[in-house]
Amino acid sequence: MTYQFSDRVPESDEDPVGNILKVAGSPDVISFAGGLPAPELFPVAELKRVTDEVYDESGRQALQYSTAIGYPQLREQIVKRMAHQGVKTTIDNIMISTGSQQSIDLTAKMFVNPGDTVIVEKPTYLCALDVFRSYGAHIVGVDMDENGMKIDQLEKAVAENPNTKFIYTIPNFQNPTGRTMSADRRERMIEIADNYDIMIVEDDPYGAIRFAGDDIEPIKFYDDHERVIYLSTFSKILAPGLRLGWIVAEKSLIKKFTLMKQSADVHSDNLTQHIVAKFMSEYDIDDHIDKIKQVYRKRERVMMNAIEAFFPKNVHYSHPEGGLFIWVEVPGDVDTKALFDTCIKHNVAFVPGEPFYPDAVTPGTFRLNYSNMSEDHIKTGIKRLGDAIKETISESVSSVSRN
Amino acid sequence: MTYQFSDRVPESDEDPVGNILKVAGSPDVISFAGGLPAPELFPVAELKRVTDEVYDESGRQALQYSTAIGYPQLREQIVKRMAHQGVKTTIDNIMISTGSQQSIDLTAKMFVNPGDTVIVEKPTYLCALDVFRSYGAHIVGVDMDENGMKIDQLEKAVAENPNTKFIYTIPNFQNPTGRTMSADRRERMIEIADNYDIMIVEDDPYGAIRFAGDDIEPIKFYDDHERVIYLSTFSKILAPGLRLGWIVAEKSLIKKFTLMKQSADVHSDNLTQHIVAKFMSEYDIDDHIDKIKQVYRKRERVMMNAIEAFFPKNVHYSHPEGGLFIWVEVPGDVDTKALFDTCIKHNVAFVPGEPFYPDAVTPGTFRLNYSNMSEDHIKTGIKRLGDAIKETISESVSSVSRN
Repeated sequence: MTYQFSDRVPESDEDPVGNILKVAGSPDVISFAGGLPAPELFPVAELKRVTDEVYDESGRQALQYSTAIGYPQLREQIVKRMAHQGVKTTIDNIMISTGSQQSIDLTAKMFVNPGDTVIVEKPTYLCALDVFRSYGAHIVGVDMDENGMKIDQLEKAVAENPNTKFIYTIPNFQNPTGRTMSADRRERMIEIADNYDIMIVEDDPYGAIRFAGDDIEPIKFYDDHERVIYLSTFSKILAPGLRLGWIVAEKSLIKKFTLMKQSADVHSDNLTQHIVAKFMSEYDIDDHIDKIKQVYRKRERVMMNAIEAFFPKNVHYSHPEGGLFIWVEVPGDVDTKALFDTCIKHNVAFVPGEPFYPDAVTPGTFRLNYSNMSEDHIKTGIKRLGDAIKETISESVSSVSRN
Repeated sequence: MTYQFSDRVPESDEDPVGNILKVAGSPDVISFAGGLPAPELFPVAELKRVTDEVYDESGRQALQYSTAIGYPQLREQIVKRMAHQGVKTTIDNIMISTGSQQSIDLTAKMFVNPGDTVIVEKPTYLCALDVFRSYGAHIVGVDMDENGMKIDQLEKAVAENPNTKFIYTIPNFQNPTGRTMSADRRERMIEIADNYDIMIVEDDPYGAIRFAGDDIEPIKFYDDHERVIYLSTFSKILAPGLRLGWIVAEKSLIKKFTLMKQSADVHSDNLTQHIVAKFMSEYDIDDHIDKIKQVYRKRERVMMNAIEAFFPKNVHYSHPEGGLFIWVEVPGDVDTKALFDTCIKHNVAFVPGEPFYPDAVTPGTFRLNYSNMSEDHIKTGIKRLGDAIKETISESVSSVSRN
């Protein structure tokens, strides 16, 4: 039969990033394309121990149906973590989700009617763009610099789009750029949202992985009018396979989220919720996060030093103080697809910038990941990448001079 | 601030069933309102053993990100289970979901534009109705008898609604009625779908729990044109807290489902997928299901006998051959809300029929669950319920005679 899909379904079955990851997955290729945490840091033994305890102490309860809002003990642990970040909240303001991706999906489903505007950083997390598109959002991108979204441009975008539902931002060590929004821009963003009475969706999967510089309070910290929906996850601080995230929002919003979640998947995995709550009550998760930070800091330093050594001097790149990613901008009108192909010939890979852009793409941009790679491989891979960039630039220069 | 929700969000925060479960949750009340499997049957020790093995053998892999389509070993196990039910399929036709609720949600998101018709049994699973409404479906209910959907009425509904996207049916031990669709009606349903070129969503969470009568092939068995999307789950045959279900559909549809799922929650809990795959490779899940059947068969018999003993003779009820539910119809124009209140006075509870109806509600209907209740409690509870029904009927008769 001929299937008649809804308007929410992308026409193409193409998964450009999936295809890139497949090419990059060849055993000879050093791939900076992924976005995976380092699996050697997963606390497997500790999780095994607390899982056994969960089975012994509350196995039947953990295996039974539960409530959409989530396991109270886990929500209590999250209240403590949020306090640690300067956000005072209660368990009634917290819902557990099946990872941040679900938090983004439920938020968009809850607020975005077809044609409503969502304002995002340019570039931004590509799977958030997919979600916003699936609900018919009109997506408006705002340029960034090293301090995050350019606030004057943001204000202009809000003013020009009176049907704006929310600003979607990843303020810390943004995906894909690794950039962090400055404290004064966070305050300015809240002011703008107050003036125009719109919401802010603060997606913060990486904030806890700060390995340099000083902590900056979340945007939620400045939120006097309950207009910030704060999202975070255990994916980067514990293990992504467990698919657990959380939403912090005003209580009546959490009630709506709970109804929406009931329709989406009843509740998140209950066994896993018990395991993570137990882990957090028996271990200091900040000790574990410190280990992650040390390793990522080292890998980031190695990648930075290799970039300085091997990239042409006119190539720009971000200087992340945490998280998993570095963003590279090769100047001139470089064809990123051609650069990618050259890289594959040199047995090295990245994610091209294109899918991260809601609209006009800046050519020559790409994302590098350092969290899931040995220091040796980082050095070798960045050297190869530098060679590929030089080759592509010289070819593009010679092709220009031939014209 | 004032929140501006999308049209998908129900205006009311009321959760009528949630409120019923709260009232029914009082310790003095014997509640037949829930729909939970019996937790004493969860194979806790076996799951603990295989979980330890997963941590030891592939802990890092199980805790890492995975693919949206799901863990191959688990999909292979499902291929075998489907063959057992007469459905030949391949792992490329199977996607793992975060429980059947997510399968329903993704299916509706994928096919239903606002205004499209979805045809359902009347009554049907209330959370499916919530999902269809959230995507703007025009829902058309078709009456049932003891053999499932009335097929002539179904054909009429399809003919009258040329924008029908799919028929949603729970053919085995339906929620809420406990009724099973006969084999010839399954074939007729396929014929109608072929004639009108529409799809069928076959939701089969209970089919494996047959404790009387003969197995009937799934509708998917009769599907020569890849128009059936078959949904099932581990919730009733293993443990619902694990939130794992599966979708069987034509390969190009599974590709679309995979893209939609990536946007919804990236993938289902990976640790849990490893655990269930391991459980199924080391234990015969059918042995476990046999234990469930034995217990549920006994509880159903006890409830049936008690109903025969204690209910007024003119009360109708379904005779399930499996699953978790019995459906009761008290004749006359009984106010189900009043009956519920009388029941609570008698310390017994059920779920009133109302939320299961897409449109006009049949008064005096309600759902009873027997899977999660001791035999003693079933007897005592049904006696109380019989008393409450008699009291309500006599009051309604005397109120009529007073008029």
